[in-house]
Amino acid sequence: MPSQRLVYSRRIRSTPFEQRVFENGVSAVSVYNHMTLGSVFRSPVEDYEHLRRYVQVWDVSCQRQVEVVGTDALALVELTTPRDISCCDIGQCLYTPLVDENGGIVNDPVILRLDTDRFWISIADSDVLLWLKGLAAGRGMDVRVFEPDVSPLAVQGPLSDDLMEMLAGPEARELGNFRFILCELAGTPVVLARSGWSGQCGFEIYLQDSSRGLDLWDLVWTEGQPFNIRAGCPNLIERLEAGLLSYGSDITLETNPMECGLDRFYRLGKTAEYLSRDALDRISREGVRRRLVHLLIPGDAVPAPRTVYRVSDGSGHMVGIVTSLAWSPRFRGNLSFATVDVPALEPGTVLTVHTSDGDREGTVRNRTWQ
Amino acid sequence: MPSQRLVYSRRIRSTPFEQRVFENGVSAVSVYNHMTLGSVFRSPVEDYEHLRRYVQVWDVSCQRQVEVVGTDALALVELTTPRDISCCDIGQCLYTPLVDENGGIVNDPVILRLDTDRFWISIADSDVLLWLKGLAAGRGMDVRVFEPDVSPLAVQGPLSDDLMEMLAGPEARELGNFRFILCELAGTPVVLARSGWSGQCGFEIYLQDSSRGLDLWDLVWTEGQPFNIRAGCPNLIERLEAGLLSYGSDITLETNPMECGLDRFYRLGKTAEYLSRDALDRISREGVRRRLVHLLIPGDAVPAPRTVYRVSDGSGHMVGIVTSLAWSPRFRGNLSFATVDVPALEPGTVLTVHTSDGDREGTVRNRTWQ
Repeated sequence: MPSQRLVYSRRIRSTPFEQRVFENGVSAVSVYNHMTLGSVFRSPVEDYEHLRRYVQVWDVSCQRQVEVVGTDALALVELTTPRDISCCDIGQCLYTPLVDENGGIVNDPVILRLDTDRFWISIADSDVLLWLKGLAAGRGMDVRVFEPDVSPLAVQGPLSDDLMEMLAGPEARELGNFRFILCELAGTPVVLARSGWSGQCGFEIYLQDSSRGLDLWDLVWTEGQPFNIRAGCPNLIERLEAGLLSYGSDITLETNPMECGLDRFYRLGKTAEYLSRDALDRISREGVRRRLVHLLIPGDAVPAPRTVYRVSDGSGHMVGIVTSLAWSPRFRGNLSFATVDVPALEPGTVLTVHTSDGDREGTVRNRTWQ
Repeated sequence: MPSQRLVYSRRIRSTPFEQRVFENGVSAVSVYNHMTLGSVFRSPVEDYEHLRRYVQVWDVSCQRQVEVVGTDALALVELTTPRDISCCDIGQCLYTPLVDENGGIVNDPVILRLDTDRFWISIADSDVLLWLKGLAAGRGMDVRVFEPDVSPLAVQGPLSDDLMEMLAGPEARELGNFRFILCELAGTPVVLARSGWSGQCGFEIYLQDSSRGLDLWDLVWTEGQPFNIRAGCPNLIERLEAGLLSYGSDITLETNPMECGLDRFYRLGKTAEYLSRDALDRISREGVRRRLVHLLIPGDAVPAPRTVYRVSDGSGHMVGIVTSLAWSPRFRGNLSFATVDVPALEPGTVLTVHTSDGDREGTVRNRTWQ
């Protein structure tokens, strides 16, 4: 694997919390929505072990918000997805694949309904802002679409309930999954949601004034001391264990929801117009050629691929690619997501993964690692 | 300035030439359109000195193409910009600011007209694909918008004409500025344009089959040996000397064309419908509050900012920000682009730049460094 320094510039946007991330010794980073995102502090395994035991504060400002507000806000959001948004309560978050007219996934954000006609779309790594601006302008809709000054700070790990109760009172602990409340932290109004990109329990604090970033971080940090808090970031090992997909790696614009286990957001009796209806009807009727599967590669750690590893079946035919991979201390093996052709995806099927370190055998799992 | 390793994944897309970029010792990189882009090989100054004297091969695959094809292709492209696209010849490239309904710049690509109803939009760092897909779907236009398998390889530097003549014959040397031809290199059809993101002469070779990337690179490399060819990349010093703007740094969605010297693409008698007409009419009528200027900071090198440096006027009022900056061996001073409020932008005005290394004086220049 090559190793290069990331060059900073204004184009790689900074975050309100970034100074603390650097001070806490982030050693490797990525770029996500034109913004920095930490990847490693001490080591992937050390970060992982700590995340599973204590509590971490994560700068996930790069989960940018696209605000949609106005008379046609609901109609515009409905247009982007097969998921029924009309049933979303104010104060609720919905994980929502956004799908284009061909059935391709544009993004897989969490949508927050702030009011009847006001949404935040908390996006993965693609410019949803531009897509929605295009759709709204193209249709002449009565709606405003913009990126507000909002930066999420995540608090993740098994002790996050204890910490958030200290910070925000019992309402935090009582908050339902994928529900949010408005409150004040560090003297600034925030949206506090029970959500986050890990399989641990956790919260996301949506800061609405970037000039207050260090105040908010420092408050969380100080109150977190009794809980052995550390600076962290989304952890590859943990998110694979939790089965969380990453847009751009496991899902792209070339993927449709039926190929990656997101079928459940289709055909729920949605009546509102949406762009991908015809395409998804057709795909549903015709079936898919390939699917995303869990592929477990037992034994020692496979080196991280630069992008993907190719996968072949028992007769040597190339049948797919590994899209994400990490060695798990918990399962003593390599967890991977792979996109494979349909005949090869039955649980128990043994496939060959062509790694940079030679061929390795992997077994298709039934959406779990156990 | 912090220094961190970039973490690779499938989400940070690889390029058809990347292996050679790594082999040639790229030491610092950036991410551009979800793809790697080299930033430094030996050092910014060494790379710069070589670029101004010889010829370099640049992997600029991250200048992704958005292909627009079909009956409504011209109408869709016209919609995105105040520039008149109808007068673009087949075989011509046009530098074109794309502007939204509020007058904000979405991107500043070069548009290539491949046929009457077929364009490539060779983009800077934002998902123009999604914006155009949104517009086309929203309007129900008869057009296909997608990212083709096209990766530009740039040949830049004063000896690039000599090299390209060896590679593609006299047609290359005779090619007019911002004109392109179709030819074959390394046994694969390419689009060859006289263009590129430097102030040197140069070409961009649009590879149309990513499986042939190394063949094309190796051909250019071998033929380039007599010309002292090196692997290079867009060079910050050289692009500032040349006065080239960088989308995301010097221009953003918050910038309008009148603020950054792109007025010339407006009010050229364009008759076709375009999204930004009303907004630009209004901005043109009302005038702008701030403008992008050349700001020369004499003396030793100012440290690179993480994002921007603030700029104040003689009475200590904050009047703007430096958006790009590099020390130039040629002008023995720091060249910078700055966005400053209108009263402060007259050539000769002295401003104070608040750098991480203390305050420095800079002088507004009249769009040149001389």
